[in-house]
Amino acid sequence: MAPDRTRPPLLLVTSLEPADEAAWREALSRAMPDETLASPDHPDAARGAEIAIVANPPPGALARLPALRWIHSLWAGVDRLLLDATLPQVPVLRLVDPALAGAMAEAVAAAVLHLHRDFPRYADQQRRHVWIQHEARPAQGRTVTLLGLGEMGRASAAVLRTLGFPVQGWSRSGAASPGVAVASGPDGLARALERTDILVNLLPLTDETRGILGHDIFARLPRGAGLVNFGRGAHVVEDDLIVALNSGHLGHAILDVFATEPLPPGHRLWDHPGITILPHVAAPTSRASASAIVATAIRSFRETGTVPVGVDRARGY
Amino acid sequence: MAPDRTRPPLLLVTSLEPADEAAWREALSRAMPDETLASPDHPDAARGAEIAIVANPPPGALARLPALRWIHSLWAGVDRLLLDATLPQVPVLRLVDPALAGAMAEAVAAAVLHLHRDFPRYADQQRRHVWIQHEARPAQGRTVTLLGLGEMGRASAAVLRTLGFPVQGWSRSGAASPGVAVASGPDGLARALERTDILVNLLPLTDETRGILGHDIFARLPRGAGLVNFGRGAHVVEDDLIVALNSGHLGHAILDVFATEPLPPGHRLWDHPGITILPHVAAPTSRASASAIVATAIRSFRETGTVPVGVDRARGY
Repeated sequence: MAPDRTRPPLLLVTSLEPADEAAWREALSRAMPDETLASPDHPDAARGAEIAIVANPPPGALARLPALRWIHSLWAGVDRLLLDATLPQVPVLRLVDPALAGAMAEAVAAAVLHLHRDFPRYADQQRRHVWIQHEARPAQGRTVTLLGLGEMGRASAAVLRTLGFPVQGWSRSGAASPGVAVASGPDGLARALERTDILVNLLPLTDETRGILGHDIFARLPRGAGLVNFGRGAHVVEDDLIVALNSGHLGHAILDVFATEPLPPGHRLWDHPGITILPHVAAPTSRASASAIVATAIRSFRETGTVPVGVDRARGY
Repeated sequence: MAPDRTRPPLLLVTSLEPADEAAWREALSRAMPDETLASPDHPDAARGAEIAIVANPPPGALARLPALRWIHSLWAGVDRLLLDATLPQVPVLRLVDPALAGAMAEAVAAAVLHLHRDFPRYADQQRRHVWIQHEARPAQGRTVTLLGLGEMGRASAAVLRTLGFPVQGWSRSGAASPGVAVASGPDGLARALERTDILVNLLPLTDETRGILGHDIFARLPRGAGLVNFGRGAHVVEDDLIVALNSGHLGHAILDVFATEPLPPGHRLWDHPGITILPHVAAPTSRASASAIVATAIRSFRETGTVPVGVDRARGY
């Protein structure tokens, strides 16, 4: 199918490395062979485009697009995008991809089993040539608490339940979730934390959740609890984390996201024995899957003319 | 309930540390309050005992028990027991514990996800302060092959299927197993290995399986495959393993069992960067669960007088 030249082009706006952007362009073109993808540098395209597809767009890049009606992000998290004060007041869609939720659930399972099965402790023993068997607890006796019960949290809960872990969850809405003891509000969270062996953060980054993984939450956890941060780096108060790990109050932390990424080579987190560092790989976006999802939204818009519903900007997701 | 003194006592024969043996004695007494547990050092007990419960019994310790009718091992693997040439020709039962199978399945899931999610590579990068994201493959594209499809293998296959991994299996019998592409015979094994991304050994140790994890099997695996040994140390030809890892033909190995345990402090395996060492913790025997299973077998014998069916000594399990 050839692109339909009577339609205004789609804008692809990113600050990705050229090879990365080219790979996205190819995946998107394959998913939408009848659409044209243009760069915002092209004046005709910038003037006519109704839809922008974005991945880390440079701040201000979306400001002067007179025909723009909506924006689709290629990422699930739109916190950085919404921080751009020049962002036009049009609906912003974030990527909601079942494949992403499945990948995240798998990462949560890997991280929880890593802590549950004492892999960090045995790695330390291996370095010291020490053979000590630590008491094993059954999964049934290890409660995992998920912060965030969106599509990723619900998929993670399902896998953890299959593995036998009791699962608690906390979300802004407090909406029921199958197989999860859902807490809501600060009191609900406080009580859930007291019964938590492994805390997994999957929250979106918003004004309310920034710095949530700090002293107040750590202090509520039982001594020796594990932490998994698969949300955003800015959820963590780094000084509080280090204090909690150094005192032994937190047993171990697995961090996949950081305030600055890539984590700078000299950063103090790299060498902390209580921290496992992953380079933002918990739930990598699949270009093919994301492109298919974006294509579906665009096809629907082309057919109906209805601008899709975007994120709640006040809420942040 | 008080022990029934009209019955001959049960013998408990171990070479465990005194505290460990005492804990077993307590768990067994709790599961069988109407039985008496005696040591083989007691001449009356040794003369009258019909049943011996054993955990690493010293070689020869079961040789002179004139009334002995059967033996129950507290371990799932009886390879060491059967090597004792003085072992009387009575049925030997090994521990078949669903809790043990569940623990092993959990360990297999932890190990497979550890390799699948590149944890060893990211740990190495963390040591070097390197941030590189490696391409993620979906579980659906990573084939796990289980050597051994007994109760542990079948339970492991079920968990791996839930996580989305295609599962192949190989067993002596080649009997069908739900959700598993079962291979049998040397040709079936060879073909299965060629399609294997992660090889997990759960075989019993027998004359046929000793040294099975050696050059011939490694050579059949695709380059970069992972290995998990949760069987016995003597399944591995250590020199072949080191060669395969050093050449990069094997990507990484997780070893839980060793020819000599504890692994001696100076052993070369400790420091190999391609090896994750666990101190025989994949599926720890639960004293309570094992005692309940032994108690059930003994109660049935007391009620019916029928000596239970033991392992096939020629087969070894």
